[in-house]
Amino acid sequence: MEQLSMEKLLESVYSQTCSPAQALQQLQGLSFDNLGFARVDHHRAVRKGFPEVIFCQNKSAPHIIDIVKNHILHKETAFGTRATPEHFKELCAAIPDIQINEAGRCFWKKSESWKLSDKAKGTIVIASAGTSDLPVAEEARCTVEIMGHPCVVLHDVGVAGIHRLFAYKEELNSAGVVIAIAGMEGALPSVIAGLVRCPVIGVPTSVGYGSHLKGMVPLFAMLNSCASGLTVVNIDNGFGAAYAAVLMNTTK
Amino acid sequence: MEQLSMEKLLESVYSQTCSPAQALQQLQGLSFDNLGFARVDHHRAVRKGFPEVIFCQNKSAPHIIDIVKNHILHKETAFGTRATPEHFKELCAAIPDIQINEAGRCFWKKSESWKLSDKAKGTIVIASAGTSDLPVAEEARCTVEIMGHPCVVLHDVGVAGIHRLFAYKEELNSAGVVIAIAGMEGALPSVIAGLVRCPVIGVPTSVGYGSHLKGMVPLFAMLNSCASGLTVVNIDNGFGAAYAAVLMNTTK
Amino acid sequence: MEQLSMEKLLESVYSQTCSPAQALQQLQGLSFDNLGFARVDHHRAVRKGFPEVIFCQNKSAPHIIDIVKNHILHKETAFGTRATPEHFKELCAAIPDIQINEAGRCFWKKSESWKLSDKAKGTIVIASAGTSDLPVAEEARCTVEIMGHPCVVLHDVGVAGIHRLFAYKEELNSAGVVIAIAGMEGALPSVIAGLVRCPVIGVPTSVGYGSHLKGMVPLFAMLNSCASGLTVVNIDNGFGAAYAAVLMNTTK
Amino acid sequence: MEQLSMEKLLESVYSQTCSPAQALQQLQGLSFDNLGFARVDHHRAVRKGFPEVIFCQNKSAPHIIDIVKNHILHKETAFGTRATPEHFKELCAAIPDIQINEAGRCFWKKSESWKLSDKAKGTIVIASAGTSDLPVAEEARCTVEIMGHPCVVLHDVGVAGIHRLFAYKEELNSAGVVIAIAGMEGALPSVIAGLVRCPVIGVPTSVGYGSHLKGMVPLFAMLNSCASGLTVVNIDNGFGAAYAAVLMNTTK
Amino acid sequence: MEQLSMEKLLESVYSQTCSPAQALQQLQGLSFDNLGFARVDHHRAVRKGFPEVIFCQNKSAPHIIDIVKNHILHKETAFGTRATPEHFKELCAAIPDIQINEAGRCFWKKSESWKLSDKAKGTIVIASAGTSDLPVAEEARCTVEIMGHPCVVLHDVGVAGIHRLFAYKEELNSAGVVIAIAGMEGALPSVIAGLVRCPVIGVPTSVGYGSHLKGMVPLFAMLNSCASGLTVVNIDNGFGAAYAAVLMNTTK
Amino acid sequence: MEQLSMEKLLESVYSQTCSPAQALQQLQGLSFDNLGFARVDHHRAVRKGFPEVIFCQNKSAPHIIDIVKNHILHKETAFGTRATPEHFKELCAAIPDIQINEAGRCFWKKSESWKLSDKAKGTIVIASAGTSDLPVAEEARCTVEIMGHPCVVLHDVGVAGIHRLFAYKEELNSAGVVIAIAGMEGALPSVIAGLVRCPVIGVPTSVGYGSHLKGMVPLFAMLNSCASGLTVVNIDNGFGAAYAAVLMNTTK
Amino acid sequence: MEQLSMEKLLESVYSQTCSPAQALQQLQGLSFDNLGFARVDHHRAVRKGFPEVIFCQNKSAPHIIDIVKNHILHKETAFGTRATPEHFKELCAAIPDIQINEAGRCFWKKSESWKLSDKAKGTIVIASAGTSDLPVAEEARCTVEIMGHPCVVLHDVGVAGIHRLFAYKEELNSAGVVIAIAGMEGALPSVIAGLVRCPVIGVPTSVGYGSHLKGMVPLFAMLNSCASGLTVVNIDNGFGAAYAAVLMNTTK
Amino acid sequence: MEQLSMEKLLESVYSQTCSPAQALQQLQGLSFDNLGFARVDHHRAVRKGFPEVIFCQNKSAPHIIDIVKNHILHKETAFGTRATPEHFKELCAAIPDIQINEAGRCFWKKSESWKLSDKAKGTIVIASAGTSDLPVAEEARCTVEIMGHPCVVLHDVGVAGIHRLFAYKEELNSAGVVIAIAGMEGALPSVIAGLVRCPVIGVPTSVGYGSHLKGMVPLFAMLNSCASGLTVVNIDNGFGAAYAAVLMNTTK
Repeated sequence: MEQLSMEKLLESVYSQTCSPAQALQQLQGLSFDNLGFARVDHHRAVRKGFPEVIFCQNKSAPHIIDIVKNHILHKETAFGTRATPEHFKELCAAIPDIQINEAGRCFWKKSESWKLSDKAKGTIVIASAGTSDLPVAEEARCTVEIMGHPCVVLHDVGVAGIHRLFAYKEELNSAGVVIAIAGMEGALPSVIAGLVRCPVIGVPTSVGYGSHLKGMVPLFAMLNSCASGLTVVNIDNGFGAAYAAVLMNTTK
Repeated sequence: MEQLSMEKLLESVYSQTCSPAQALQQLQGLSFDNLGFARVDHHRAVRKGFPEVIFCQNKSAPHIIDIVKNHILHKETAFGTRATPEHFKELCAAIPDIQINEAGRCFWKKSESWKLSDKAKGTIVIASAGTSDLPVAEEARCTVEIMGHPCVVLHDVGVAGIHRLFAYKEELNSAGVVIAIAGMEGALPSVIAGLVRCPVIGVPTSVGYGSHLKGMVPLFAMLNSCASGLTVVNIDNGFGAAYAAVLMNTTK
Repeated sequence: MEQLSMEKLLESVYSQTCSPAQALQQLQGLSFDNLGFARVDHHRAVRKGFPEVIFCQNKSAPHIIDIVKNHILHKETAFGTRATPEHFKELCAAIPDIQINEAGRCFWKKSESWKLSDKAKGTIVIASAGTSDLPVAEEARCTVEIMGHPCVVLHDVGVAGIHRLFAYKEELNSAGVVIAIAGMEGALPSVIAGLVRCPVIGVPTSVGYGSHLKGMVPLFAMLNSCASGLTVVNIDNGFGAAYAAVLMNTTK
Repeated sequence: MEQLSMEKLLESVYSQTCSPAQALQQLQGLSFDNLGFARVDHHRAVRKGFPEVIFCQNKSAPHIIDIVKNHILHKETAFGTRATPEHFKELCAAIPDIQINEAGRCFWKKSESWKLSDKAKGTIVIASAGTSDLPVAEEARCTVEIMGHPCVVLHDVGVAGIHRLFAYKEELNSAGVVIAIAGMEGALPSVIAGLVRCPVIGVPTSVGYGSHLKGMVPLFAMLNSCASGLTVVNIDNGFGAAYAAVLMNTTK
Repeated sequence: MEQLSMEKLLESVYSQTCSPAQALQQLQGLSFDNLGFARVDHHRAVRKGFPEVIFCQNKSAPHIIDIVKNHILHKETAFGTRATPEHFKELCAAIPDIQINEAGRCFWKKSESWKLSDKAKGTIVIASAGTSDLPVAEEARCTVEIMGHPCVVLHDVGVAGIHRLFAYKEELNSAGVVIAIAGMEGALPSVIAGLVRCPVIGVPTSVGYGSHLKGMVPLFAMLNSCASGLTVVNIDNGFGAAYAAVLMNTTK
Repeated sequence: MEQLSMEKLLESVYSQTCSPAQALQQLQGLSFDNLGFARVDHHRAVRKGFPEVIFCQNKSAPHIIDIVKNHILHKETAFGTRATPEHFKELCAAIPDIQINEAGRCFWKKSESWKLSDKAKGTIVIASAGTSDLPVAEEARCTVEIMGHPCVVLHDVGVAGIHRLFAYKEELNSAGVVIAIAGMEGALPSVIAGLVRCPVIGVPTSVGYGSHLKGMVPLFAMLNSCASGLTVVNIDNGFGAAYAAVLMNTTK
Repeated sequence: MEQLSMEKLLESVYSQTCSPAQALQQLQGLSFDNLGFARVDHHRAVRKGFPEVIFCQNKSAPHIIDIVKNHILHKETAFGTRATPEHFKELCAAIPDIQINEAGRCFWKKSESWKLSDKAKGTIVIASAGTSDLPVAEEARCTVEIMGHPCVVLHDVGVAGIHRLFAYKEELNSAGVVIAIAGMEGALPSVIAGLVRCPVIGVPTSVGYGSHLKGMVPLFAMLNSCASGLTVVNIDNGFGAAYAAVLMNTTK
Repeated sequence: MEQLSMEKLLESVYSQTCSPAQALQQLQGLSFDNLGFARVDHHRAVRKGFPEVIFCQNKSAPHIIDIVKNHILHKETAFGTRATPEHFKELCAAIPDIQINEAGRCFWKKSESWKLSDKAKGTIVIASAGTSDLPVAEEARCTVEIMGHPCVVLHDVGVAGIHRLFAYKEELNSAGVVIAIAGMEGALPSVIAGLVRCPVIGVPTSVGYGSHLKGMVPLFAMLNSCASGLTVVNIDNGFGAAYAAVLMNTTK
């Protein structure tokens, strides 16, 4: 059944093509499935343009599989993040043709209607400061790709050898959005935001030791950047950065 | 003198229309003015699409006035944030036709070539949770407007009376970007990001008391939001949110 | 106009006694007044049983006065917290018969329909550990009284001389709710919660020095109490404790 | 032997039906059993209305079993929290008819005189924001039920899809107390406390990652809520919330 | 009336020389005076060997004067800490022969029965690291002296010039207790505790800047000392250190 | 060779019974043994009255055994803390007649000249708030006993059932020093210090969960106690508390 | 009298050209002057190569003047930091020919024997990120100059316009040491340390707002730098950085 | 191909011995090798005087081996830190003649052109406070030695037995740089910096427990040292301290 706007719904009640009870039920029934242990938010695709994503941390494999199947039932793309090797093993056994990215800890099964976005403003450039930031960069890459936008990944271009970054100035200048990922002192997003004119999203990572405070140092460094056009997401949140980047990279 | 790209510059050296010494000088000389106490970055307008903004906190009024005059000399728009009443008094005396927004602590003097942007994807909606967030919201409003984008401000629509927000759902749905400003527990950006499909920028404010930690609580709450599409800027950073919002709201 | 439930409203739309447009307007129009700088939530009295309270910190006296008048216009009780001596001065000049409690930093003007609650389960006992906790205790007292519940205040009964507390065991045993206020190490609520069988609300205060962390130490001490039946509010939040105490002390 | 009040005891001394030595002994002997490694507080049921609860974290299974048996000996209900699978295994072997809730990490053995409370003001609603908050919600459920009050649990109704919460508005409106459990940004209790008129207890959980600070972020968010009627307990403290909720939900 | 032990009191009830009501009254009436804004704990001298000390921070001068007079009335020594110049001015006007130490922010009026202790194990040495620690050292000195113990003060003997400390090794070796006061990195107590065999009390001070965290750094440094025999009090708590030092320096 | 004071040494140099080279050597050679991986401080017994204690955390069993043997070689008592079960196993195999306390994680081998102290002012009372504080209390007990002082241990007397503490008031009143051990909110030392007149040493423990901050909460609570005569040691530092207690309990 | 090494002193005792008493006195008497409120460490010039510096924060002007005069008496250079305008006023009145740097909050009076160092390895480059870092940069400049080393200051070369820094690559390449001063995100020292081969000292400043934590963010960013050769001093510690830089810049 | 300076390169373009395309390529191609997962910075040896060091934490053994081989290919010395036993095992199998220091967690393979530096100002003294600081001290030792400077290591000379340090005063006085390593309260660097005239680098270690905050306490203590000439590196960063020490110890 087609999702109606509030106005449409009120009008169909007014015209008595829909009873008050039906209206109440539709408002509730359409919008989520109660699996007992979870309420899957199918209304999200309508509101946000992309279905609810499965955050696998602390979830059991059977629960994840049930949610994936529920998405498939609704003919929605299923996409999961923070999956473990155990999750991958059980998912591959249970769901035919599911695809995974182990470094990025993601899996997905595209709906039949999945297609590349025709509204991408430009390429989304994902730049990471060091080789240890790889998992976060790959999580971001998977998210951008499943949402249908073009992306390019530049690994290991941190400020200790800043010429490595400058070698990719062209990619940076033509980007629609840049996702800049860094642990340690977190200086990379500041330097990039000082160079480009598109929005930059900083992703601090928990890579480091000693007074690194598990990523709080690069997080705060990015929030206090002297460069403009930089916004920040949570530590290690490659998914969140990519999701926001896609929204920013979407022409109306 | 026109700003050349690195390739252009190397080519003009190769063709000997530019000597190595001139090339070196151009690389340096074009890009900033040394006022002694400051190096004004005129290259920024080329790189970022908007000139260097004057952050007035801890600067003396004479220093600010000198920087404003330097911008005027370069026919650039001058825009200042975090100005105090004392700054305003001296600026108005020294710079004819300067404009100010006292609540937002901003001033500006548009260049002759200033014009509304023709590349705005949509309206930028600025929503604030409480009346005490006003200064931050006004700083954001001034920044959006001086950068030539359309905006609308919704004051006092916090989650303690969530129906006040829902009354403006139409504005939210048609926004190009939403800037959501909140102190206290900082829940407003999460709720908005759960409703809209455009990017949302959260701005935590230092409004609160007790364990509020001068804005760290809403900052962390926003970074840990369960809603997608939300990125965050520093506490009270209305300017930074607006600057990033304009970049996001710009069609290529 | 009377506030309708969602079902009632849908039914009146269905029966065509109310048009969709009217329904939409009612949902929005009834619930708040837009004063420009603020949206006064008149729906709150319906939802919560007590009107929106005016938190005066960072508000100008004219704004506060406008909000008070708006409450008077709606025939609601006006109650304000965290008022300064300047606020008091201007309020007394502008609003006839307004009442104040200077130590508690509160003012109020009761509506004509104000009356003592007939649903109070027992007395609300407010116990404070030291003489410096007085402002918080008085804020709590004013809040309880304006909400129509009986209360008694015990000042200076902290654990360094625990016999002072035991002298009031009868009051404690017959309480409906106890509000226990303490700075320093914050041990008083734990000791009280170990003695009584009614709910205890701990209020940490910012009284102390050195490693006191502006009240974070008693806050954390109360949250980690080994005694049962204790819940906690923010540092110095006498109002919040009292508001919650009244809800707890209300028989259905 | 029956527990006497201090006045009663003094009177029986005065009337010489009780010697000073007996009086001293009664004061001490009645009130706890010294098991060597622990002093079980049997006086607590008299003071608080419910016997001492066994917090199993860091306790060995044999110690726990000894305490359970001591409760059985005193014909008191035994109730334990934070039990591990190893604890469960040994308890089930040692104590006939003991009951467990694995997800909630609780066990109990009711006394013969256990009965449903006839003083419950209303239903206690336990609402949790996400599927990962399940263990805390179940701990709260077990605690409410063993204390004889009615409860209902709503899983996975967090603010990222706020319509899932609004679907249960009737349950919320008729609650005696609401326990609102949330990790991440901890916004759920604020939103609920903005809607209902009964007391709300916020329980932050340690679910999250990055700058989540192991639950400190939702803890602080709840303490700084702009909504009234909300009090807070320690991170993951489902038991403490439930215990306090029962006290609040008890008519005199 | 003489203070009775619990056993004595029970016996006099048993022998009917004291009624239950009188017994209850004695337990309560003897122990404190209710001044309205404060409950002065006169029982403390009995329990602790020294009367309640007046902590003047945040107290008004009239309140302090009332408490001093109450002590005089009870023929107890009055001793106040953290007094301001304003307090001193009003106290000197109101209380004849009151004595003050301005640097130490203390005042006192000895009772007629005041005398030097005849139970001091040795001299109490007060060593401070820098000239800025003077107020804390003087507060400690006043406290030791009013409690009747001998003391010597060594200013400015910090570890940056460790030979200054070693010049006083004799004083250190013959001390009964050493109070070691230091801001900055707080190393002095560790070095002293590595040298002497009596107890050492570390007092961190709030002297410093930058990452000094208002005294938290020396506090933590002292708590983590690798030297034995060192215990610690709160930041700037010269009084608390001295009070504890006197207890330690008292032979049974 | 006998340990000389600096003065003695200078005099023997002056009288030429000792050459400068010998003097230098003596200053160095007497005071520690260089085991390669460690410099065992045998001078400590001279300075502090008790030999260097072996802190086993992060040390290998062979290293510990070498140090123990070195102490035996110097006819000193060997005493080790924070030993693991693996340490115990290898120590028992390598050192005949070594004694251990597993709960307290300690071992010792008394020197032949070990004897009970004849300078103890009173009994050292060790009071712990909960059963989980046992390891810290046992570490304290072992330390007191190896140093030759009398002690008594009271387990599980925390403030949630404060009558359990009051039952031992006699022990508390006759103590030379009290060591009060508590996790959670850390209120026990404050309550005890409000009752007794001897020095009290607070030991915070890392027992707790949620916002307990691994013992920082009781640590700060104890530092901010409103009771006098209380000093504090590091979290879980039963050894340090006991060592300081023995110094305090020693009559000159 | 000439300062003797320990060996020299022991030899002159041995040869009886110096008595033990004289030796003891020399060890103590030479090394500091006791001004009552301070012990001026004149031995420091011998040990460290530069006399004790006067840290003026929290010192009274008369105390500072006394210390300056004591230095003059010992024919040492007097140098003070963190002086206030009030200090300057009284110093200029009391000490003829004293020199001051107001922006740097320093004053000095060179001894007659003051001369430029002939052991400087290179120029000390002081680079600051923004105009607000001026006071710290000037404090560093004064310190370097009074210690006799050459220096050059580059203001306002932060990473938001990184070409401003690259314009001074020659100065950076020829430096003996670089002092890099930055607030906000503190990225400048990392970028410089990635470019040069001499030691770099990072100085975080307290310039910033919001989550800047008064300089803790740039401090931690510098400590976690991915670039090698970078060491760090305390927040705003221009003096400490300069002092260390001079030591590093000194050829043997 | 030889590395050209920017000026040289521009001149060869001007003289048309190098095309613009070649110039661009040289700028990029010379400076790093793209291994796919990493960009090895071979330009670093030119800029910094020592090639990029391999930080092994979180890297797989095959990746490390590839980077080592890449260094060998470029005839550079390979040096790795934070290697695990697993890394060592695979490295020794894959790379002939690789050398390791297990305690220091380092490995290296010198290039053929490796030689001792002829520019060392003095010996680098590495002093550690306790036996648990060994891994950090050994990491520093390996780094100094691979960079060709002389060093000496003093283990276990902390301030609890300060005479152990004084025994090595000669080594300290003749040092070119001192690296002072300490956990616990971190006092050792302060004491050393008070004694010597060369630069001192403090290295806090994560050795400790309770309120040690994983090394934050000694880190802050060192940053707040009252002694001059001390700079600090990150917690446990033996490599960073040694690298900086070598730069400081290098005569021009």
